[in-house]
Amino acid sequence: MNTSDTAYLDYYEYPDWSDSRGPTKPPVEVILPCEPTADDKLFHICISTISLVVMLILILLARRRKPSHRKGVADLLSPVNFLDQTQLKGLTLAVFGILFCKLSVVVLSPNPLPFIRDPAFGNRAYWKILALIYYPALYYPLLACGTLRSKAAYVLGSLLSWVHLGVLVWQKADCPKTPEIYKFYALFASLPWIAGLVFLSLHYPLLLLRSQKEAGAAESDDSAQGIDSSYYKDYVKKIFKKIPSKSSTSTTAKPKLSKRLSDTLKAYIYTPEEVFRIPILLAASVAVSFIAIYQMTLLLVTAVVPTLHIVRAGVDEDIAFLLAGFNIVLSDDRAEVVKIVVYYMWCVEVCYLSAMTLSCLISLVMLMRSMVLHRSNLKALYRGDVNNVHSHHRGSRPSRPALVWWMGFTSYHAAFVCIGMVVQTIVFFICLLFAVFLLIIPILHGQNLILFNMLKSTWPYWLTLLLALVIPHLATRLAFIKKDAGRTELDNRNALFLLTYFLFLVNVLVGALLGTWRMVVTALYNIIHLGRMDISLLNRGVEPFDPGYCCYVQYLRIEVDHSHPVMKAFCGMLLQSVSKDCGAGQKMCDAEEGIQLVGQKWKTKSSSARRAQARWLLLLTLVNNPSLVGSRKPFHRPGSDGQLNGTLSHPSSIVNAAEAGGKDGGKDTETPAPV
Amino acid sequence: MNTSDTAYLDYYEYPDWSDSRGPTKPPVEVILPCEPTADDKLFHICISTISLVVMLILILLARRRKPSHRKGVADLLSPVNFLDQTQLKGLTLAVFGILFCKLSVVVLSPNPLPFIRDPAFGNRAYWKILALIYYPALYYPLLACGTLRSKAAYVLGSLLSWVHLGVLVWQKADCPKTPEIYKFYALFASLPWIAGLVFLSLHYPLLLLRSQKEAGAAESDDSAQGIDSSYYKDYVKKIFKKIPSKSSTSTTAKPKLSKRLSDTLKAYIYTPEEVFRIPILLAASVAVSFIAIYQMTLLLVTAVVPTLHIVRAGVDEDIAFLLAGFNIVLSDDRAEVVKIVVYYMWCVEVCYLSAMTLSCLISLVMLMRSMVLHRSNLKALYRGDVNNVHSHHRGSRPSRPALVWWMGFTSYHAAFVCIGMVVQTIVFFICLLFAVFLLIIPILHGQNLILFNMLKSTWPYWLTLLLALVIPHLATRLAFIKKDAGRTELDNRNALFLLTYFLFLVNVLVGALLGTWRMVVTALYNIIHLGRMDISLLNRGVEPFDPGYCCYVQYLRIEVDHSHPVMKAFCGMLLQSVSKDCGAGQKMCDAEEGIQLVGQKWKTKSSSARRAQARWLLLLTLVNNPSLVGSRKPFHRPGSDGQLNGTLSHPSSIVNAAEAGGKDGGKDTETPAPV
Repeated sequence: MNTSDTAYLDYYEYPDWSDSRGPTKPPVEVILPCEPTADDKLFHICISTISLVVMLILILLARRRKPSHRKGVADLLSPVNFLDQTQLKGLTLAVFGILFCKLSVVVLSPNPLPFIRDPAFGNRAYWKILALIYYPALYYPLLACGTLRSKAAYVLGSLLSWVHLGVLVWQKADCPKTPEIYKFYALFASLPWIAGLVFLSLHYPLLLLRSQKEAGAAESDDSAQGIDSSYYKDYVKKIFKKIPSKSSTSTTAKPKLSKRLSDTLKAYIYTPEEVFRIPILLAASVAVSFIAIYQMTLLLVTAVVPTLHIVRAGVDEDIAFLLAGFNIVLSDDRAEVVKIVVYYMWCVEVCYLSAMTLSCLISLVMLMRSMVLHRSNLKALYRGDVNNVHSHHRGSRPSRPALVWWMGFTSYHAAFVCIGMVVQTIVFFICLLFAVFLLIIPILHGQNLILFNMLKSTWPYWLTLLLALVIPHLATRLAFIKKDAGRTELDNRNALFLLTYFLFLVNVLVGALLGTWRMVVTALYNIIHLGRMDISLLNRGVEPFDPGYCCYVQYLRIEVDHSHPVMKAFCGMLLQSVSKDCGAGQKMCDAEEGIQLVGQKWKTKSSSARRAQARWLLLLTLVNNPSLVGSRKPFHRPGSDGQLNGTLSHPSSIVNAAEAGGKDGGKDTETPAPV
Repeated sequence: MNTSDTAYLDYYEYPDWSDSRGPTKPPVEVILPCEPTADDKLFHICISTISLVVMLILILLARRRKPSHRKGVADLLSPVNFLDQTQLKGLTLAVFGILFCKLSVVVLSPNPLPFIRDPAFGNRAYWKILALIYYPALYYPLLACGTLRSKAAYVLGSLLSWVHLGVLVWQKADCPKTPEIYKFYALFASLPWIAGLVFLSLHYPLLLLRSQKEAGAAESDDSAQGIDSSYYKDYVKKIFKKIPSKSSTSTTAKPKLSKRLSDTLKAYIYTPEEVFRIPILLAASVAVSFIAIYQMTLLLVTAVVPTLHIVRAGVDEDIAFLLAGFNIVLSDDRAEVVKIVVYYMWCVEVCYLSAMTLSCLISLVMLMRSMVLHRSNLKALYRGDVNNVHSHHRGSRPSRPALVWWMGFTSYHAAFVCIGMVVQTIVFFICLLFAVFLLIIPILHGQNLILFNMLKSTWPYWLTLLLALVIPHLATRLAFIKKDAGRTELDNRNALFLLTYFLFLVNVLVGALLGTWRMVVTALYNIIHLGRMDISLLNRGVEPFDPGYCCYVQYLRIEVDHSHPVMKAFCGMLLQSVSKDCGAGQKMCDAEEGIQLVGQKWKTKSSSARRAQARWLLLLTLVNNPSLVGSRKPFHRPGSDGQLNGTLSHPSSIVNAAEAGGKDGGKDTETPAPV
């Protein structure tokens, strides 16, 4: 496709074909490559230097802070604590979104890296690969300014994001049209990018304002990140508050239709819950997937529809000769042939746009559904309900492949959504083409009723198949099943066996129909769910062979293993008790906090009674959650502290997490030797 | 395709193309429609009359027997007791196989019903539908002769099957070649049919001989069918004998490679077990599926390969002009072009044959695997292990749809196997074509290396993707996972988060690769398993939407519900005790038999001790098989007879089954009112 030929006309106004002058060619708008005033090369040289300077200033700032303060240079190197659910997600999501927008530029543009103008085709690959590393580095300072939590860093962040935003808007205002793919493609593709930068340039000033307010008052607990946040404690409080009172609804009585409808609707609409935060990588994956859907929709529209427009506009009377060459004579009048061909091409375009819209909507619905399922899966895993989420339960310790899957989860999800959309669009397009050209157009015009003629000539077969479906159902209802005091029993066995024998041959034909249906259902289901990682596209027994589902399961495992809210709450309390320097009474202090938290009064009981109660609770937990037994086995110790082993990690990992959360303390707690 | 043009030559000997005379056309063998001496129309008029007469004689024979005898006219109407595992399967399998062979004749032949010669195209449909009813009726007497179990019936059966076989062999010897599809197609297609008739004509005389031997001696228990058979008692004995002694092998130690290999092999090779008989419908479905694989293979070969031969033989120098019309110039020398085209067509043929062989082999392997799984599923269901087989456990009573699925199971299985083979052949053929024309031929000839050139020009991308896969694995191994006293823990979290951020963009490309892999794996898995009903092609949550799996689950439910060996054994004992006329001591007698059977000595214990032991056993059963609780709930009664409720049906159904098994007695047993 010659992209410079992009035409723009109201193609529905066709010239008068009936005169013999032939069609007038629509004028073609030629878009020349546009050079923005703010040259991209110059801008990138400047901005990368500025970013480097900002990073150096941030490092200096981090070094000058008191060493007792938890944040330091090491924190600058980790852009976000991806295993902490209390992090502010806005910054991360914005930067990931911007990066994904840059990816489409890198993949599609002939100038992947702005430093090199129009590289030779052979060298382009190297620049593209370099660009995949360059852009994360370029936007890294925008993230790093948020991690230090100092006013100076916020000021730097604001300035940097303003520069990025200003230059980008300037460039787009200078050159709204580009010759690539479609004249406005580059503009539309950069919209999420601009949105991300706008968010950053508003977010940093807000953070600055908030930190200035907090400078006078004591740091509020709600805004605290990491182990100090009140979120974890709130989560634990909520767990202990909520005694399952809904057991009365689990009776066999069927719920009402309206209730079931609203339940179904709720299963597809994600509404935030009070004391539950989605892990940051999961949130990023959802945000990136949303941008991926937007970018894919844009690409699918702009890559095909303008071409179809051009082709449709270029149809002239030569098409009649061309078709006659293939022995296709649509009409004797050549002008008529042109009209018919243009009409058909318009139908094709409508089919394509419908298919694309459908695939876009399906992707959005699936994304929403995924979010609802992510939350319910995470909650189930926090509870220790492992078997509900994975069918194959293995060891819950982090393995190497699991960590690699965890690292790539966000990217894989976005890629799967993109591939899913492409496949869906192609399949739906083909299906719609068949439907339109074999069903709708024949019905509307009353000709070429190929499908209907086929159905008409084979109606005895269809009637037989229908009878072969209806007769057994009727016979079963009338003769073979007897209701005996509310129970169904087999009756008239001889007649049943006779009918089974006589229907054998007809049923083979019914089976052929069912087999086709099976194929269609399976293919459609898998195509619709191709972009979702939270369900396996394979059968129960071979789920681990589905790379998407495998990745999701391993991701959840790492997430649950290292950011379990109950564990984090415990670590927080542990560190608090250490920092309070209780001295000899430290352990007592910790235990008291725990007791205050769960609101129980064990203090009044003797040691043996307490142990007995703990064992009783353990037993009750295990009986009610048999799936815990599997997770518990390797950690089995005869002590009374086993009741949280199923949901919690091994104590040594708790201590490790505590160390990761805060630099000081946590070592003087006891670390039981692993069995 | 004009079927009368079927050619037969050694096409690998090409005439000398280099001379200018052009290729010599191979002579085409024209096969004229063949009229066998035994005219089909006349034969069918005679044989249907004979069959009618045989049926009338059988009815007379059945009426003349003593009314106390269990077999009667009603039994003649039910060809086989499909819910009885002790029936002799040979007759049923042979007749079902013959019927399936006739189906391919009915579907493909222009003369579906032999009474009407060459019907008008419009009326052919009606005759085909009539043929679907006619053939089961025609072969019905062959089955019915076996149900009556009298010498006269066996003689009639022998005669009938000899007539069928004799005429068929005579016809095939008269007319081995037919003009349809491929000259030997009709001959090869009738081989399983002949085999079935040979089996019948040997089986009936054997039955006659055996019944004559048994006339003197008492009827041996082993050959008894129905409720009297010793099979059910043997099954119960085996259950009680086998105390699970393999619990020691369930340790975490990994089995040896050789052991695992042999286990895998065993999972794909069906070896009959001593005290386990496959239900008759399942056996029929396997036999019919085997014939379906044969017929499909034959059809796929004969429909395509001769055509390819003809096309290849017809290639002459005109092909060079034709290709030049499409701007394809294979060579300047026209003879060279012909050679190349013939070589390519030979490659296409090889691809097709390989694809078909592969699909045939896969279907056979899947059939074997299915049989192994059928047995293990049935055993699990007999044990009450419902959750291992179905993921969605619902009520276990027979429902209307379940019965309809049960009736069609055999036919559906055969149809699924056929569809699976067609789809597999097409997909494998396309894949092999790609492999041959993009990989093998380019490598062999060193030209048109399109794929390799593409790989060569994009190697930096592939290297990047490889690095993006290797780097995280290496980093995880070296830095991020720490082995701490045998346990793995996360380490260097900051570096982990940094790497996660920087690999984000590259991982999207890896994700695109994984997505493609996911699509390929899912499609291949589903295509390979399309012909299998014992596994769902859909995800865990939506298994009931797969018509194949749904049918299988419902079939198993009906089968287990109405032919549970333990239930049958119980019914047999019940009927035996009734027929012995124990009078007042009847209950005691029954209990004694049960006690002898299970080899326990409860008699010595008091009533309350017995009840306590029964309750204890019930508790133990339920604790060890938690899945039973679900099945047991609706039958919950506080009595001591509950320990088999989970695996057995409701007592009323037992009595019904007992009534179905034998006509007399069974009513005087107590029927507890359903709860």
